[in-house]
Amino acid sequence: MNDNDSHLTLEICLKPIGYVKSELTELTFRMKQDIPPDIRKEQILSNHRRIKEVISELIIHPDYEELLDGIEAFSHIVVVFWPHLLSSENRQIKKVHPMGRKDLPIQGIFATRSPARPNPVLISNVHLLERQKNVLKVKGLEALNGSPLIDIKPVTRFNDGVKSPTFPDWINQINKDFELD
Amino acid sequence: MNDNDSHLTLEICLKPIGYVKSELTELTFRMKQDIPPDIRKEQILSNHRRIKEVISELIIHPDYEELLDGIEAFSHIVVVFWPHLLSSENRQIKKVHPMGRKDLPIQGIFATRSPARPNPVLISNVHLLERQKNVLKVKGLEALNGSPLIDIKPVTRFNDGVKSPTFPDWINQINKDFELD
Repeated sequence: MNDNDSHLTLEICLKPIGYVKSELTELTFRMKQDIPPDIRKEQILSNHRRIKEVISELIIHPDYEELLDGIEAFSHIVVVFWPHLLSSENRQIKKVHPMGRKDLPIQGIFATRSPARPNPVLISNVHLLERQKNVLKVKGLEALNGSPLIDIKPVTRFNDGVKSPTFPDWINQINKDFELD
Repeated sequence: MNDNDSHLTLEICLKPIGYVKSELTELTFRMKQDIPPDIRKEQILSNHRRIKEVISELIIHPDYEELLDGIEAFSHIVVVFWPHLLSSENRQIKKVHPMGRKDLPIQGIFATRSPARPNPVLISNVHLLERQKNVLKVKGLEALNGSPLIDIKPVTRFNDGVKSPTFPDWINQINKDFELD
């Protein structure tokens, strides 16, 4: 490698800007090995349908309230958060069956959206329902109660940058299971 | 506030998983106050067109090479990176004219995609051209040479979660300037 190596020894430190208030309190990410694929798939689907409807609050630290000004004009926001209940062992995982589904081929962690990754900075696009001062009400956030918030960004077209994405078959299978076009 | 306050004192520490090799070496983010809106707008457009075509390499630390397995089957990936040249003063900014354009209304930082934010964890969706072992070749990444990489994720449909986003007028203006539908 080269002199850019110095960047690999850097430590990046973040202070949360707020936290999530949600009825979701349990890790849905479970690597139980003993669940038959069909039951596992049904669990994931029912969990997915539930999360799509969950309404959460993002409690932003009052020091940052002013930074939210203008966000109420967007229908969707990007929530960047930290899965605080993920164990440090889970950050060492190298490969998984996506969503713990044995019927899907094993993948490297960077080829999945598994929360268990070296730097578990999770990203979720959600529907913004309402802003009241330093509190954002959102729909469809898969973050557990108490998750620290790292950042809030608007969903814009020019930051999307994806016209016609293509996927491996296992993703097409999940999109089909979830009834997504 | 409540007992979730404890999460606001947490410090989140990340170790880069790699770094960016790019021909982009200068901050395009400049808050010069003396540029007339028309010229500023032209600069941004020409910069946007250039970045869309830029080919960069993501050099992943060899320890993480295996975590990339399967990523080559995706057309687009989400690159999560750190703008290492951003000063700590820039992380204190509360409001900006988006992209430094005085013709657009001032916004709170969380209502913009400005890199200058309290936790500048930047997210870019890019076209994945090729994987060679621990190196990903991508197109359209607005990250400067040497930027530390925090995470790599695939673009999937089920993580998108946005059907028909709506935007404030100033975003519609930028999308129009960028000729995006």
